[in-house]
Amino acid sequence: MQILEDTFWSHRQLQSEFAAKRGWGRFHQPRNLLLALVGEVGELAELFQWREEVQTGLPGWSVSEREAVAEELSDVLIYLVSLSEKCAVDLPRAVLAKLEKNRAKYPPEQVYGSARKYTEYPQ
Amino acid sequence: MQILEDTFWSHRQLQSEFAAKRGWGRFHQPRNLLLALVGEVGELAELFQWREEVQTGLPGWSVSEREAVAEELSDVLIYLVSLSEKCAVDLPRAVLAKLEKNRAKYPPEQVYGSARKYTEYPQ
Amino acid sequence: MQILEDTFWSHRQLQSEFAAKRGWGRFHQPRNLLLALVGEVGELAELFQWREEVQTGLPGWSVSEREAVAEELSDVLIYLVSLSEKCAVDLPRAVLAKLEKNRAKYPPEQVYGSARKYTEYPQ
Amino acid sequence: MQILEDTFWSHRQLQSEFAAKRGWGRFHQPRNLLLALVGEVGELAELFQWREEVQTGLPGWSVSEREAVAEELSDVLIYLVSLSEKCAVDLPRAVLAKLEKNRAKYPPEQVYGSARKYTEYPQ
Repeated sequence: MQILEDTFWSHRQLQSEFAAKRGWGRFHQPRNLLLALVGEVGELAELFQWREEVQTGLPGWSVSEREAVAEELSDVLIYLVSLSEKCAVDLPRAVLAKLEKNRAKYPPEQVYGSARKYTEYPQ
Repeated sequence: MQILEDTFWSHRQLQSEFAAKRGWGRFHQPRNLLLALVGEVGELAELFQWREEVQTGLPGWSVSEREAVAEELSDVLIYLVSLSEKCAVDLPRAVLAKLEKNRAKYPPEQVYGSARKYTEYPQ
Repeated sequence: MQILEDTFWSHRQLQSEFAAKRGWGRFHQPRNLLLALVGEVGELAELFQWREEVQTGLPGWSVSEREAVAEELSDVLIYLVSLSEKCAVDLPRAVLAKLEKNRAKYPPEQVYGSARKYTEYPQ
Repeated sequence: MQILEDTFWSHRQLQSEFAAKRGWGRFHQPRNLLLALVGEVGELAELFQWREEVQTGLPGWSVSEREAVAEELSDVLIYLVSLSEKCAVDLPRAVLAKLEKNRAKYPPEQVYGSARKYTEYPQ
């Protein structure tokens, strides 16, 4: 999984350079970035708010609506990566550890396909 | 940047297998995952809510507090990747496109280091 | 509408006393309360996340699930009222002004019943 | 506390009429309103995101910035009241019950003024 870490590092590097070149590094304290993340999640939610149930693959959505979704998902990731960096969290390593923990916590044979169990033991 | 896409794909693959093995794929419609993402962002916010200003690197935070931050950041990423997949968005490609768009939108020489400009032209 | 303001004032008063009696006033800076609000919205979202579409009145929800919804809605309101106070915003007056502004912005005869118009002119 | 309930009812009434006159009632299912609430909280967060620590009363904020805060706080309340109604939750009654529960849960003499206790026993 070294490759996963290397790749995230490249991505983080791109963002750090983007902020540094604009003198924006000093705005990037953890709580600032956290609130920026909340703002982007809000913009993402606005794209889904009057839709009722949305199916996998967003059938019926226009090209510009899909582009808006792609942009907001990207904005969330951009701030999430920046926030992780400012919190000194190695995000790719942390995700792998969390997935491993989840695998142990929810044994497939105990929780398989049950909405009730899924609700009781949220993923 | 092929490597970035390949790596995200591996990560997405891990998560898909995790859900599939537990029969949870059918709960993973876009709006379900979006609300789950909101829930995880809320848990992340709770870790920072009574802290007043937090400095880069989280000085003074205990090991268990840091682990909690790493876990919540991971949970946000896990749902973000799943949501992207269900929206048919190629997230690593979308992020690179968004960073490119931001580079054009905020020319360094125009926005350098100004809090006012930064606020007016939010990243 | 004096009565609306008086009533909110009573409610705000109750909460202020609650915090003051516990020496918690000093934790109630605006950004702390904002993050606490985000945390409560996250807990509310978690109650709805695996539900797919939920109908008006929450048919089929158990008594304890309904109580959980009532508690999380309350928590959101409690922090919203506290945050408004710390921002020196007279919330009941502000809401009436916002509703008035919305009435002017969305004339019934122009926007009636159209999902498309509703989406274009979000409420 | 009858007056609190009556007043909220008036407010709810105003909003219901607003939506009904525009034929928007059918968009107001619980999860739609919840995502709209998330969207408004995101807009509120954006006003605070690059501010670092903000003091009580928002010293130094311009008139237009303060108006923006008042509008976003209002939008959050508008959707919160609508969501409560669609969930068949009597919000003013629920808030009073929650405050009572909190009073019992956090006895002043046990939790007074301690950041640590405040964190351990979040309000």
